[in-house]
Amino acid sequence: MVKNDASFMRLALNQAAKGRYQTWKNPMVGSVIVKHGQVLATGYHHHYGDQHAERNAISKLTPEQLFNSTLYVTLEPCNHYGKQPPCSELIIKSHIKRVVIAQVDPHKLVTGKGITNLKQHGIEVEVGVLAEEARKLNEHYSYFYENDQPWITLKQAISLDHKVTAIKGTRTQITNQEVYQRVHSERADYQAIVIGSSTAIIDNPSLLTSHQSNFPPIRIILDRRGRLLDHLDLKLLTDNLAPTWIFTQNQELAFHPFNNSVHCFLNKGNILVNLLTELKKQEIQSIYVEGGPKIENAFLNQFQVNELITYLSPDLIGQDGLDGLSPQFRQQFTNKNFEILADNIRIDERN
Amino acid sequence: MVKNDASFMRLALNQAAKGRYQTWKNPMVGSVIVKHGQVLATGYHHHYGDQHAERNAISKLTPEQLFNSTLYVTLEPCNHYGKQPPCSELIIKSHIKRVVIAQVDPHKLVTGKGITNLKQHGIEVEVGVLAEEARKLNEHYSYFYENDQPWITLKQAISLDHKVTAIKGTRTQITNQEVYQRVHSERADYQAIVIGSSTAIIDNPSLLTSHQSNFPPIRIILDRRGRLLDHLDLKLLTDNLAPTWIFTQNQELAFHPFNNSVHCFLNKGNILVNLLTELKKQEIQSIYVEGGPKIENAFLNQFQVNELITYLSPDLIGQDGLDGLSPQFRQQFTNKNFEILADNIRIDERN
Repeated sequence: MVKNDASFMRLALNQAAKGRYQTWKNPMVGSVIVKHGQVLATGYHHHYGDQHAERNAISKLTPEQLFNSTLYVTLEPCNHYGKQPPCSELIIKSHIKRVVIAQVDPHKLVTGKGITNLKQHGIEVEVGVLAEEARKLNEHYSYFYENDQPWITLKQAISLDHKVTAIKGTRTQITNQEVYQRVHSERADYQAIVIGSSTAIIDNPSLLTSHQSNFPPIRIILDRRGRLLDHLDLKLLTDNLAPTWIFTQNQELAFHPFNNSVHCFLNKGNILVNLLTELKKQEIQSIYVEGGPKIENAFLNQFQVNELITYLSPDLIGQDGLDGLSPQFRQQFTNKNFEILADNIRIDERN
Repeated sequence: MVKNDASFMRLALNQAAKGRYQTWKNPMVGSVIVKHGQVLATGYHHHYGDQHAERNAISKLTPEQLFNSTLYVTLEPCNHYGKQPPCSELIIKSHIKRVVIAQVDPHKLVTGKGITNLKQHGIEVEVGVLAEEARKLNEHYSYFYENDQPWITLKQAISLDHKVTAIKGTRTQITNQEVYQRVHSERADYQAIVIGSSTAIIDNPSLLTSHQSNFPPIRIILDRRGRLLDHLDLKLLTDNLAPTWIFTQNQELAFHPFNNSVHCFLNKGNILVNLLTELKKQEIQSIYVEGGPKIENAFLNQFQVNELITYLSPDLIGQDGLDGLSPQFRQQFTNKNFEILADNIRIDERN
């Protein structure tokens, strides 16, 4: 590692983060071009479908400036034609002398190939500078391509006596305004939100986020029996504000003529297994499961859950309430993190 | 208020705190004697039965030093013969010119009388300097004499899925070592610890504290039906390390020949009402109810609980576990405080 590599890479990471909530299925990537110890240009991937971070920086400079320069990039440059021509080719053509990469791209179409191509053209390549930070920036993306399955986060809001609502079949605001805002922000970190039909019907939520994006999380309803047919005026089925996917075994629901934002999947067998298969197929990298408790218990009992986020209010709701998630067997997460949100607390646990 | 009154009173409060865990039914009290802006002596109430804070400071000085001095004392000087002669008389005889008091003594034998006596003898008296801090120092004492009932704290240790043990009828260590140490320390802040017979039998606890004291908390077992008769080898019934009180409706248990540390109360009717009546009669100012959940629910449903302390582990224990406290109806506390203890959290709620 050359002196200052880490600080130029940190600058590239800061650039990358500017694309948050906009790059959708693409990772956030940032780049910095340096010559004689001077930053000549910075760039990042702005939106899904737009030019990549390397091209964004390179396009700001003349061939003379690029000649013999060093490129810092937070993720391995791509080597294939996707929505954009391959960055490795552009780097080679630009006569960049040295490329410093934080993270090897875990995406199977890229991994290692970009690096190999650069090296084969005589470019000096260094890999792994601030790799951990870079991986963290695109944690769900990395996990998905490393493990070929989406990152699953369960989220619940409970009272101290472990209730999610004061009376079964009704909605109770258990947690405070800070939690409300946090959840609305946090949803934008996921590519899909999953709820059961009871939650859809009782709460009638919009499941939107507080962050502007052309790619809001897909709102997924699990409705095995087709209960939504009696509730066709729900916001999720009519508001057109984000895609809504329904997984059901009910033929009538599956073929109901919804508006264009609503898409139904007709399933046989275990609906959660079908959901995960479809998510993999469509490369949906992460889901935020918002309940209710039955759905969350099913996830905990059937799958490897990556993260559990609990918003806890220290109020006592009383014995008529509905209990929060409660798995069949003991489960422990490796990493636990607490955050106090006024008079509530956020407990984040992950493996 | 004269300049520096608050800082001399803070010194007196620091003195008072030296008596922690030793003054038992007496409040912690500290005193400082000042002349010409100079601290001449400090004092505090060292142990239950020992001389009071005022006498402790006064006894360190000559009549010349005391003449025309100012006495700072965290609690109103007593005016009656108890285990010690009245401090008000001693102050008058010492020709102290001015007395600054933080808190008026809520004890009905004292309240206001000490102040009146001093004033009648021409002593300048100021009351209320750092009164809030002084009251907080002896919170349970103050509450008891202000309300004629003991301060009731419920304490529970639960998992994220609201279990106190993994399998009913057995003991599971839910919380971590930091919690264990904290509870052992915290017990010493109370004059009695209350558990049910199930907890006594299943856990076989000692209910001791980590603080040396001649007056460890009384260990109270509620055993309506006399189940302890089948478990006479429990630590609480045999270890002789602190007093044990048993409240029961079972005649045989009530008259069982235990050792001298064990005292039985034969009850008719509601055992919790009997318990509280006895505590009032014996001026036990505070209780720390350690469970199990049935006893804690009974407290929550029948009485005004002053404080609820929950130690929460973010682990999930599984559905065979026994649920933590769960009152019949909604209950909210006014003040909520969180404290992170490694990978567990302490939630303190009070009215």
